[in-house]
Amino acid sequence: MMKNTDVFSRFAPASLLAALLVLASCAIAEPLPSWNDGPAKQAIVAFVKTTTTEGSAQFVPLPERIATFDQDGTLWVEQPLYAQLMYCLAQVPALVKAKPELATVEPFKTVMSGNHEAMSKLHTEDLIKIAAATLSGMSEETFAAQAKDWLAKAHDPRWKKPYTELTYLPMQEVLQYLRANGYKTYIVTGGGQDFVRTYAEQTYGIPPEQIVGTVGATKYGYAADGKPQLIKEEKMLLMNDGPGKPEGIQLVIGRRPQAAFGNSAGDSEMLEYTKAGAGARLSMLVLHDDAVREYAYGPAQGLPASKIGTFPQALYDRAHKQGWTVISMKNDWKQVFSFAP
Amino acid sequence: MMKNTDVFSRFAPASLLAALLVLASCAIAEPLPSWNDGPAKQAIVAFVKTTTTEGSAQFVPLPERIATFDQDGTLWVEQPLYAQLMYCLAQVPALVKAKPELATVEPFKTVMSGNHEAMSKLHTEDLIKIAAATLSGMSEETFAAQAKDWLAKAHDPRWKKPYTELTYLPMQEVLQYLRANGYKTYIVTGGGQDFVRTYAEQTYGIPPEQIVGTVGATKYGYAADGKPQLIKEEKMLLMNDGPGKPEGIQLVIGRRPQAAFGNSAGDSEMLEYTKAGAGARLSMLVLHDDAVREYAYGPAQGLPASKIGTFPQALYDRAHKQGWTVISMKNDWKQVFSFAP
Repeated sequence: MMKNTDVFSRFAPASLLAALLVLASCAIAEPLPSWNDGPAKQAIVAFVKTTTTEGSAQFVPLPERIATFDQDGTLWVEQPLYAQLMYCLAQVPALVKAKPELATVEPFKTVMSGNHEAMSKLHTEDLIKIAAATLSGMSEETFAAQAKDWLAKAHDPRWKKPYTELTYLPMQEVLQYLRANGYKTYIVTGGGQDFVRTYAEQTYGIPPEQIVGTVGATKYGYAADGKPQLIKEEKMLLMNDGPGKPEGIQLVIGRRPQAAFGNSAGDSEMLEYTKAGAGARLSMLVLHDDAVREYAYGPAQGLPASKIGTFPQALYDRAHKQGWTVISMKNDWKQVFSFAP
Repeated sequence: MMKNTDVFSRFAPASLLAALLVLASCAIAEPLPSWNDGPAKQAIVAFVKTTTTEGSAQFVPLPERIATFDQDGTLWVEQPLYAQLMYCLAQVPALVKAKPELATVEPFKTVMSGNHEAMSKLHTEDLIKIAAATLSGMSEETFAAQAKDWLAKAHDPRWKKPYTELTYLPMQEVLQYLRANGYKTYIVTGGGQDFVRTYAEQTYGIPPEQIVGTVGATKYGYAADGKPQLIKEEKMLLMNDGPGKPEGIQLVIGRRPQAAFGNSAGDSEMLEYTKAGAGARLSMLVLHDDAVREYAYGPAQGLPASKIGTFPQALYDRAHKQGWTVISMKNDWKQVFSFAP
């Protein structure tokens, strides 16, 4: 039989060390280190404190802690074009090879011409046609492999880095800070749900089941070898943009978020819906006002710089009226990317 | 400064106690206590061991541990009628009051007649019409309140208990056992996604975002007081039955389950899709062969006892061929409900 002191010597030092480490990490881990101490950071910290402190009038039980994030322009760079649009354009040659009749049909003809000026003038309806054609007709596995392959090779034209490195460091910190406080973080994007699922776990720590995006139907069937497969169809189930965002949140999550983050008019309804809930709700709008470290567009430039997604002054008026907090990239963020440009 | 022995006396007894409790609970907590020790229980325990033991060739990383469960007939009683169908029928008088023109239109006329024999002869298309009419036109909040109200009052005709008490104790144990081993448990039901969401957290410990069901579109708009709301529309987005189940899993989860549980032909594709994945996969089929403690139908009775949902012999042939494990309620379950009938 062991003596009591033996038991103590085996158990006590480890637990003492653990207790000290907990105390030390609490003292050291100042949240959101890439944020300047302004109203935006203060709003996030105050929201987390009031919703996670037991006994607080605005305490939110663990299962109800849901936070939703737009992706393009909110979590990563969306200029000069959405990464997924670059992906779809890159798939057109293979598509035309498989279906030669498309070579003479617009908008595929323009894309095949390689004329960048003509391509930059394609309308939204053209881009939707390109997206529909390049994101359907294959199995989910084949699509995921193609998307991963492209993401591993493609580079952003300005920083010459993979798109997945162009996430905003301060927003990565918000994701981590919320998760450390029991929040389940979701991406709610106008981009393709299946596309974002291929990298979000590695890039943001957000698993496939926490991606809500624009999504088409799939069809269950069998491959040539008899194995079951899901084929991606052109039929749209949900255009997850504008009013589609609260609708997508209902479809996949089924609860109103406690916190939501966006940057464009396409996020307006999500931010409004979130803020209209009872208790403490946080709605935040990223303002692109840093032409040096990222881009300046929307109200910071007068007119929208992108054809898809709009940034009208009315959006900021709405933010002011409904109590959303605007995040100024220029003033609120010490650093934009994990790499220092 | 405290002496070392003081530190020990403060920390050691608690951690020693904790360690002993862990050891004790491991020794005591035999999994699945309501299951007889047969091939079904053994299949579940072996699956969990091989997929959760570090170093096992079939180890499944924590984020990929997804298990899906059909609800009606798999987690709770589906006879003589689905609970949700009882709910929809109960809403018809209020619907006809709001829209008097429906009083003379079938199938509403038959429901209003109160003639149970005529009602039992309604076709599937009639029932879908009733479901569509009674599950749309109101806000999500109003619907949830109505469903909760009904569930709190309604009683099953045989056991005279609320429907939410008619869950199978052995299946509740499987849910808990899988969750205790890091599995995320989902309901994947032909029933209405929003309906199941109103009680699944309390009844099964499964949150709204882990319910995949038959689901209609919603429309974002504003109530009379200007507050944003989501109105339930008749437009169907996904009929989550048969091939719709893997399609619904892709829509909401985006990963192939490691384990799936069903009981009818409507679960066949989900079980097949799950079993066709790489590594260890568990597909299980509940056989209703206990007329005394629950019901006997399907192969146990020759012909299907219900108009919706089918239980053909072919399903059991498929189970045998594809390596699904059949659960015999009569032989595998010591007890069916948490109450002893």
